[in-house]
Amino acid sequence: MDAKKPNRRGFLKGGAALAGLAAGGVRPASGQTQGEPAKKIDELIAYGERSRFVTSIRVPVAERHSPDEFGLTFHVLTPLQDQFGIITPSSLHYTATHRGAFVPDINPQEHRLMIHGMVDRPLVFTMDELKRLPYVSRIHFIECQGNHAKATQKTVQETHGLTSCAEWTGVPLSLLLKEAGLQNSASWIVAEGAEEVKGASSIPLAKALDDCIVCYGQNGEPIRPQQGFPLRLMVPGFEGIYQIKHLRRIKVVDRYYMTYDDYGHISSDTKAAALVRQIGPKSVITFPSGGQQLSGPGFYEISGLAWSGAGAIRSVEVSTDGGRKWKIADLRSTAYRMAHTRFGLHWKWDGKDCVLMSRCTDELGTVQPTRADVAKYWNKPLDNKLQIRGADNSVQPWKIASDGSVQNGLA
Amino acid sequence: MDAKKPNRRGFLKGGAALAGLAAGGVRPASGQTQGEPAKKIDELIAYGERSRFVTSIRVPVAERHSPDEFGLTFHVLTPLQDQFGIITPSSLHYTATHRGAFVPDINPQEHRLMIHGMVDRPLVFTMDELKRLPYVSRIHFIECQGNHAKATQKTVQETHGLTSCAEWTGVPLSLLLKEAGLQNSASWIVAEGAEEVKGASSIPLAKALDDCIVCYGQNGEPIRPQQGFPLRLMVPGFEGIYQIKHLRRIKVVDRYYMTYDDYGHISSDTKAAALVRQIGPKSVITFPSGGQQLSGPGFYEISGLAWSGAGAIRSVEVSTDGGRKWKIADLRSTAYRMAHTRFGLHWKWDGKDCVLMSRCTDELGTVQPTRADVAKYWNKPLDNKLQIRGADNSVQPWKIASDGSVQNGLA
Repeated sequence: MDAKKPNRRGFLKGGAALAGLAAGGVRPASGQTQGEPAKKIDELIAYGERSRFVTSIRVPVAERHSPDEFGLTFHVLTPLQDQFGIITPSSLHYTATHRGAFVPDINPQEHRLMIHGMVDRPLVFTMDELKRLPYVSRIHFIECQGNHAKATQKTVQETHGLTSCAEWTGVPLSLLLKEAGLQNSASWIVAEGAEEVKGASSIPLAKALDDCIVCYGQNGEPIRPQQGFPLRLMVPGFEGIYQIKHLRRIKVVDRYYMTYDDYGHISSDTKAAALVRQIGPKSVITFPSGGQQLSGPGFYEISGLAWSGAGAIRSVEVSTDGGRKWKIADLRSTAYRMAHTRFGLHWKWDGKDCVLMSRCTDELGTVQPTRADVAKYWNKPLDNKLQIRGADNSVQPWKIASDGSVQNGLA
Repeated sequence: MDAKKPNRRGFLKGGAALAGLAAGGVRPASGQTQGEPAKKIDELIAYGERSRFVTSIRVPVAERHSPDEFGLTFHVLTPLQDQFGIITPSSLHYTATHRGAFVPDINPQEHRLMIHGMVDRPLVFTMDELKRLPYVSRIHFIECQGNHAKATQKTVQETHGLTSCAEWTGVPLSLLLKEAGLQNSASWIVAEGAEEVKGASSIPLAKALDDCIVCYGQNGEPIRPQQGFPLRLMVPGFEGIYQIKHLRRIKVVDRYYMTYDDYGHISSDTKAAALVRQIGPKSVITFPSGGQQLSGPGFYEISGLAWSGAGAIRSVEVSTDGGRKWKIADLRSTAYRMAHTRFGLHWKWDGKDCVLMSRCTDELGTVQPTRADVAKYWNKPLDNKLQIRGADNSVQPWKIASDGSVQNGLA
């Protein structure tokens, strides 16, 4: 074989051999640090990795506990303080289950989705059959209802890390429901996942027919196991618990079904019960945020994320004096509907104590509420689950001390 | 410590112990295949992984060779046939270098960007300083000029895999150049990366001031090493070679500089020389594509990607009879400027031999050319590099045989 024109097999072989000679595929640039021994070069061809200098990781929620046999939930927080733009890398997408840390290990060849109940033609789909249907790709956030900031939490990962945003690809649920043929009495669906407690939720039919997606793709790849491989129901703008992972069954029904996942969603007030499912409008400053450090007075770029379950973000305001004056921030990414939106504001810090806050307004004109407004219902004890409590979307303050240290500004 | 309320340290410890009990964080769902021994649970908390059933990988270009000491380039192809939506997962983003397979192992704390030449104030930035400046996040494709389909190639990964699309975040180059202060005679920039052959390219100042971005973020994370960690110049819509990886120097000059990267870009025809840098309009069907198999006559979803260096995709047409009749396809994602755009068309295959093709039109009204049109210049030998040759953006045919097999339709 001519060494100048290797075929693919030759390339791989040659590459693997070279890797041994030169620390496994990395060679220091002039004046740079020598790399650690790394993966074989053919592995790096197959599936690339991040730099060894990039160490951002998720962390579990400190105090979550659940009714599973290990007394543990698996609530893992996205490092929002390290993220750029609006796409959450799939490896860092938050995950929350009430089934412990175990993720179903599903063979997609064996997975099925059944649509039944009040339909003319009950249907069962294989993954291959679903992929033969028309699909859409949309950028949407997911947020856990429990993404509630507390004064004891130090970083934005801890206060707000139960939300992430990704490109989701799949079949519009409306297409599947129309194919099955909805009967006149149909008014709700119950979607169920392949987990121990089923991960089932009741969803109004109006929402199901509007913008829900039966997703198999996340950021260009098959959905990751922790996000519901091989199939997840995307219910844009609704609380995370509605985005059913490992989706295997959709039953069309004529009423709300009570399931394991229903905490906080039961109410005798129909309007309140409907609204509680929808997230936001909400925003948070990710830089500067708790635990970060300003190096001294001067120019900084205040950066953050805003989102709303009601649609697109219309505007974001930032206050650097604890909420007395507000400035309109720049939107630094396109404001997609039900998606994280990046905002920024160029700011000169004078070196004095101050409190930073952000608040957003969505396309319906709804303004993110203050902590005091939200506290009116958050601080009320739940009355045997007959009261509702929406996700906390209040304004988050970050306190900057004169030494440049940043702390959670919740009293 | 109360087992029901572990603190974070307890969670991690407990998790690691549990991993041993239950095959490392995966537990088979009822009726599902038992998982392989997997990573420890605290590693899966930190940074998630894809399912073991997902095996899509990049492959190297078979016949590329280069002048580096090993006689090898590192041209690695994105598996477009497996991708959903428009975001290429960072681990599967194509990469192309002429410096062999070695990626500079750069410590971002030591990395600097210098802006000098015909400016009033030469500037040197650390990474931290760059991140203190206003930024934008944009979804853009990159495509290598060498992304040229050949009749001998079997799959869409081989014919078109030297293009990918990601969310890029960074500082507008115009901001840095204005800060440095452009002198009157300035008309080009030369951007240089920290690689052996510098990865330098000359870029017209008009483009530099228009929409170029000095990027540190890719899909929410720091740019991956193979894509130019810690800093890459994004030159939206231009050939891949202009998107300088490991960016360390921008020199403002008054003329085109000849560098190692200049093959194919030199021309005495100024208009041709300017246009050759810009990609597309181009499109390709990713399903059904070469090497795939239709299971029999019936409904299928034709799916593909379209992109243009001139702006947004306006429309895509699909032909299922080798180019005689064309149907308007659906756009299945938002058509961002200089970004991959997903298209689809629901199609009933009658089981007979046929040829599928797609062609797109961009926002300027430019239509993707036929193979015959492009062959007029592609088949002309390059005359000692004094002629130009744009990237091949011709229509790609896929031949479907009556047994459902799909083959490259290039004669």
